Amino acid sequence: MTGLEKHSMTPHATGNPPARASRQQVETGRPKRMGGPPDFDADFRGRLRDLMIWRRDVRRFRREPLPDGALGRLLQLACLAPSVGLSQPWRFVIVDSTARRDAIKQCFKTCNAEALSDQSAERTSLYARLKLEGLDDAPCQVAVFADRSTSQGHGLGRLTMPEMIQYSAVLAVHTLWLAARAEGIGVGWLSILDPARVADILEVPPGWAFIGYFCIGYPKDECDTPALEQEGWEARRPLSEALLYR
Amino acid sequence: MTGLEKHSMTPHATGNPPARASRQQVETGRPKRMGGPPDFDADFRGRLRDLMIWRRDVRRFRREPLPDGALGRLLQLACLAPSVGLSQPWRFVIVDSTARRDAIKQCFKTCNAEALSDQSAERTSLYARLKLEGLDDAPCQVAVFADRSTSQGHGLGRLTMPEMIQYSAVLAVHTLWLAARAEGIGVGWLSILDPARVADILEVPPGWAFIGYFCIGYPKDECDTPALEQEGWEARRPLSEALLYR
Repeated sequence: MTGLEKHSMTPHATGNPPARASRQQVETGRPKRMGGPPDFDADFRGRLRDLMIWRRDVRRFRREPLPDGALGRLLQLACLAPSVGLSQPWRFVIVDSTARRDAIKQCFKTCNAEALSDQSAERTSLYARLKLEGLDDAPCQVAVFADRSTSQGHGLGRLTMPEMIQYSAVLAVHTLWLAARAEGIGVGWLSILDPARVADILEVPPGWAFIGYFCIGYPKDECDTPALEQEGWEARRPLSEALLYR
Repeated sequence: MTGLEKHSMTPHATGNPPARASRQQVETGRPKRMGGPPDFDADFRGRLRDLMIWRRDVRRFRREPLPDGALGRLLQLACLAPSVGLSQPWRFVIVDSTARRDAIKQCFKTCNAEALSDQSAERTSLYARLKLEGLDDAPCQVAVFADRSTSQGHGLGRLTMPEMIQYSAVLAVHTLWLAARAEGIGVGWLSILDPARVADILEVPPGWAFIGYFCIGYPKDECDTPALEQEGWEARRPLSEALLYR
């Protein structure tokens, strides 16, 4: 249904120029060594910057499904993210059940009503107009968790900062997000949910920390400005306001 | 000292092909619109995948300084990361003071001794051999925090998941990390530190959550395999072990 099984059969659906990975690479996550590290030139860096500029938190999706293999390819790339102690604590839950999707939607509605009532009087009407999720249209829905109980990594880097497990899962999310954008696929991160309720709906093991619920699909629009900025909710600030020297 | 001031004078030190950003873009973080979104083709996607494969957590640095403007450029790119409610809660503390760097190093030593004693008997000698930081050699050192008290974003997306503020700062870190790798610059994330002690050493405002301490500089080696895998600490697992269907 998600094309993950088919993925391993057709890893190169999007083309196979010389620089692309071999089938072995796709399946093991490791490249063949061919004369050392790749050269990332100024043209690539410029396009990487464009990718970062044009990556959006998407809430308006077209309903068409992703091509076979696309989600699997994105999840494989997500696993290339850094993780504390090489613990790879990210856990992906692909949500296809209509009943579970409906329950997530209900959970959002409840949490969003609370969030609306928590807003100041002067922002309530603007908040109510924002579209904050793409649950009705996104063809793919993936919940991401971080397994706090994993022994992988043997605890390295976690003793004073156990939250590194959650941070590692966030790094996987961002890796997937950028890779998706490079394929023209949009991702929307939904955090207006009750983590305990989501864990219950999806019946995940105890010890998994909820990171976010992700709507994935082709976006209706592409834009270089965040939706919340377009809609007048918030404006971006310059780097200088986020910088200290010590 | 860090080249940040000079950055705004020479934003294009690494070259300026047609696709690169204008000076205005670098300073505002917004591209000019020229016929819609860029086309990310198969060649770019292959190179993006290479970037993810060759991004390492670097602990062995060459001592040479980064070129003028490099750190500023990376921090500007980090600010393109997604953030909950457009809150941009990342805070970057550039640490140049020798006394503060020494105090961070001492903090690491204390925490790492605790971590060593926390390891199982059979892993102690392997743990003791690992090189886990590049504090002596990395020319740039940046601590990253997340400002939990920021009103930017007006609380959107944070009511049920206040940790979204920290996750947003992690997204900025990862953006910087990938952009750095594309310039041949390595980043090492140090989490074997006491967050309260680090906040004290760096005298940051209350309410800032410590995310990590980052060593940044040119790496001594480049490799497509994580150091912890090379050194026999841990091996990567296949995606299938991180996947559930619901």
